[in-house]
Amino acid sequence: MGDHPVDTGIAASLTETAAAVEAILDAELPRPAGAEARLFEAMRYSILGGGKRLRAFLVRSGARLAGADDGAALLVAAAVEMVHGYSLIHDDLPAMDDDDLRRGKPSCHVAFDEASAVLAGDALLTLAFELLVDARVHPDPSVRCGLVRAMAKAAGGKGMVGGQMIDLAAEHGGADYELIVTLERMKTGALIAFSCEAGAILARRGGEFRRSLREFGRDVGLAFQVIDDVLDVVGDEAALGKTVGKDAAAGKATFIAALGVEGARREAAALVERAAARLDGLGDGAGPLRAFGEHVLARQR
Amino acid sequence: MGDHPVDTGIAASLTETAAAVEAILDAELPRPAGAEARLFEAMRYSILGGGKRLRAFLVRSGARLAGADDGAALLVAAAVEMVHGYSLIHDDLPAMDDDDLRRGKPSCHVAFDEASAVLAGDALLTLAFELLVDARVHPDPSVRCGLVRAMAKAAGGKGMVGGQMIDLAAEHGGADYELIVTLERMKTGALIAFSCEAGAILARRGGEFRRSLREFGRDVGLAFQVIDDVLDVVGDEAALGKTVGKDAAAGKATFIAALGVEGARREAAALVERAAARLDGLGDGAGPLRAFGEHVLARQR
Repeated sequence: MGDHPVDTGIAASLTETAAAVEAILDAELPRPAGAEARLFEAMRYSILGGGKRLRAFLVRSGARLAGADDGAALLVAAAVEMVHGYSLIHDDLPAMDDDDLRRGKPSCHVAFDEASAVLAGDALLTLAFELLVDARVHPDPSVRCGLVRAMAKAAGGKGMVGGQMIDLAAEHGGADYELIVTLERMKTGALIAFSCEAGAILARRGGEFRRSLREFGRDVGLAFQVIDDVLDVVGDEAALGKTVGKDAAAGKATFIAALGVEGARREAAALVERAAARLDGLGDGAGPLRAFGEHVLARQR
Repeated sequence: MGDHPVDTGIAASLTETAAAVEAILDAELPRPAGAEARLFEAMRYSILGGGKRLRAFLVRSGARLAGADDGAALLVAAAVEMVHGYSLIHDDLPAMDDDDLRRGKPSCHVAFDEASAVLAGDALLTLAFELLVDARVHPDPSVRCGLVRAMAKAAGGKGMVGGQMIDLAAEHGGADYELIVTLERMKTGALIAFSCEAGAILARRGGEFRRSLREFGRDVGLAFQVIDDVLDVVGDEAALGKTVGKDAAAGKATFIAALGVEGARREAAALVERAAARLDGLGDGAGPLRAFGEHVLARQR
């Protein structure tokens, strides 16, 4: 990072983005009405009023760097948060990670029921795609198609969903380090990479610029997950708002098993350094993304 | 239907379309490979080699009537079949309808496991949207965005998923006739309406033409569901390839409870007649859609 200015106001920026994306989500999520009201309640319960909105921050920061419209970025950010939220709802299901606590409150299937949780996730994923093709996102429909394509690739069987599949299989142990890296790059990294890349798509900046943003997201996303594993061991349950020590108890493949806590912290720092190097030459607006990398390393929750 | 020519070759047309869309699905679904191979196996298991492909037939027939390209229609048909297949996988889950038999073989969560079934559904829904924005579907990206928007609306919380939500709530009894109509229009009718309408979107034919196709689909879709309820009472399990008598056993709200078997058959016939009337004035190519209406009334499985 050395000579590059670091945005020390990332906490304030995160809070401001969280509020802005919360307002969009509140407007875009259906109001509970009709005989299916419980579905909309479950969607709103899981998506609103919680979450650090890190992906939204990345979408906005990438968009600013690329020169894309901030209002458009917020809509894309809302779509990404819907996809992230749906994945958490489904991951928390008893048949999956069986987690009762999420963002400091009961998981969707606990607060509602399993069927509602499955359906709330399904509806959120669908709504995210509907939002991306909204004309407010971009006047050029080819840009909107590009967003759908990239988000679908990041979220689908060869991305996030495939990563969760590997994660479930790896619970039974025997996952080597390389497989953990693969699964985390898919499960978490792919959607974070899309979040970073979305601004380049919005600004119609392809080639090396777009690739650099995506690669930044890939590495910083992996670092994020490495630190997640560290916090699962050393973190504070109240601060995290989720169960800790669960991965180890489940015999789950984590970076800690392979690297140890200190080794994992070193690996995360190396990944963030490499990620930051990707931003060299992308212009002066990369400060918030660099600050995000530092934030990943410093976070306690 | 009276003066209109009816395509008596619908069985052959259905078979031909089923084979054509099967080939597309086989090509578009990921081959099992990598650590997530089981996910792709579950997707392929549920989608390939089964199903009547009625929605694909409707997409193709609507496209032909609208003057859209048949190859494009087949891609859209494949996307619709992915969405339909995902909805069956999730509906069959123990927390939902808890059905062990689907298309004459064990349901996805039985053949694999619950987690794989949830994820296979998620990945199929995502892949369907990715396919719709593929440039092969249409050279004009605004058409592709229009397809995504319409399919998302049909499949989402105010369509198919919302209908399933109402259906689950209605299982506990007390659903009146109007609510059953609402839930079936959402749960089944919305995606069938999109299937019929897709050709108009592909051919950039809006207004009354597109609306007529959608309304045809809405009514024929409801008729389909009415007959489905009839077959659940009088049908043959082996021919249907799924458990019969289950709805009644579950105390589920069906058209039979409200109308009786004969009343339900009359209602379906009235719906198909009204649906067929929507096709008047849309041109000579409506034969296959009219034949489909008759097929819905005559079907035994």
